Amino acid sequence: MLKALIFDVFGTVVDWRTGVARDVAVFFSGRGRQVDARGFADAWRAKYQPAMEKIRSGSRGYVPLDILHRENLDATLQEFGLDDAVDEAARADLNRAWEKLPPWPDSVPGLTALKTRYAIAPCSNGSIALMTWLAKFGGLPWDAILGAEIAQDYKPQPSVYLASAAALGLEPAEVMMVAAHNSDLVAARDAGLKTGFFPRATEHGPGQTTDLAPSEDWDVVAADLDGLASCLTG
Amino acid sequence: MLKALIFDVFGTVVDWRTGVARDVAVFFSGRGRQVDARGFADAWRAKYQPAMEKIRSGSRGYVPLDILHRENLDATLQEFGLDDAVDEAARADLNRAWEKLPPWPDSVPGLTALKTRYAIAPCSNGSIALMTWLAKFGGLPWDAILGAEIAQDYKPQPSVYLASAAALGLEPAEVMMVAAHNSDLVAARDAGLKTGFFPRATEHGPGQTTDLAPSEDWDVVAADLDGLASCLTG
Repeated sequence: MLKALIFDVFGTVVDWRTGVARDVAVFFSGRGRQVDARGFADAWRAKYQPAMEKIRSGSRGYVPLDILHRENLDATLQEFGLDDAVDEAARADLNRAWEKLPPWPDSVPGLTALKTRYAIAPCSNGSIALMTWLAKFGGLPWDAILGAEIAQDYKPQPSVYLASAAALGLEPAEVMMVAAHNSDLVAARDAGLKTGFFPRATEHGPGQTTDLAPSEDWDVVAADLDGLASCLTG
Repeated sequence: MLKALIFDVFGTVVDWRTGVARDVAVFFSGRGRQVDARGFADAWRAKYQPAMEKIRSGSRGYVPLDILHRENLDATLQEFGLDDAVDEAARADLNRAWEKLPPWPDSVPGLTALKTRYAIAPCSNGSIALMTWLAKFGGLPWDAILGAEIAQDYKPQPSVYLASAAALGLEPAEVMMVAAHNSDLVAARDAGLKTGFFPRATEHGPGQTTDLAPSEDWDVVAADLDGLASCLTG
């Protein structure tokens, strides 16, 4: 019997691109610099998978995503020719853009409905700190914070899904992984979890070509998070 | 600046004795056995500190409290001459009494008020699973679940307080440990955290003689959890 739902967060629950671009725009306009804020957000995010891959492959020990984001910010500032414009304290501030990402409009209603029947928690590559402050910013009503830091590794390593189920004292089949990314669900299903999908067609902006539809026969497919909640509580 | 409050749970936020005794009474009356339910709860709880001490001292590796509770249940059943009366599946059920403990009447209002200004989380010796299900049972509005399982050790080891602060990305002095037990606060203060106390005069029943008043000059002292919230948000 299904007892808990665990969620991808960046893209699935919150709109990271809009949030980061907004903070980047405010940050540089306050310093009198013109920056392509959406391009900056995309370039920052593009370094996400390669940074985690070093840890997944074992060539680097686990460090929380906050540190990877901070290193990737340094590289992005250099790419954009802004390396001299931002001191250390300001970089630490800007890195907190990832703690202030707006939920998609259906996310809080959907999570609130699901929470009445199931335990709900993030199973994100974000740290406990990042997920906690992000939840406070957007009002995400999690029951617990699970994911990468619990497992000391990064998705899609199977240990992240398995450690999240185990931390709730549950078998993998009692837990559903929910994501707007098919690859996340492939890994979760391989680890024995149930799977729930809905698309986020503008996560990467208006020209998005990926994850617009389910690539496989997931256990539940819905239009959005609120729709998933209707399927599972209706 | 204070950014988070972390809480002892058994005794401080929930009334474990009433909750366990109630479940024990229902459990045995359903099996036609007369049992001193409060005495059973006290005997079960009395094995709590010795069981954790083996792990704190390093003579046993970390196992979650659910397993210690289960082992202590076996010993308590034997003490009460009930060893033959309860099979394995029923013991697993009875062990879940610790997931169904009533909050003290002021706990949910106090936590709800504090949550508007601070991150709030348990820093309990209970596991992530136990704390999560307990919160769902009683409506405890935690932002995250911290404590023993994050640190892989048991309070009052300093690592439990320090790991809980670190998991929020905070310095120890940005975090207040809140407990109705003076000894918990001694350890938290030694680790560099702020301290908040209120008494729970009937945690151990009507004849309680311990922790009726603050033993030291804690940062905040209140009458109960709701009173602590008034001090910190008023």
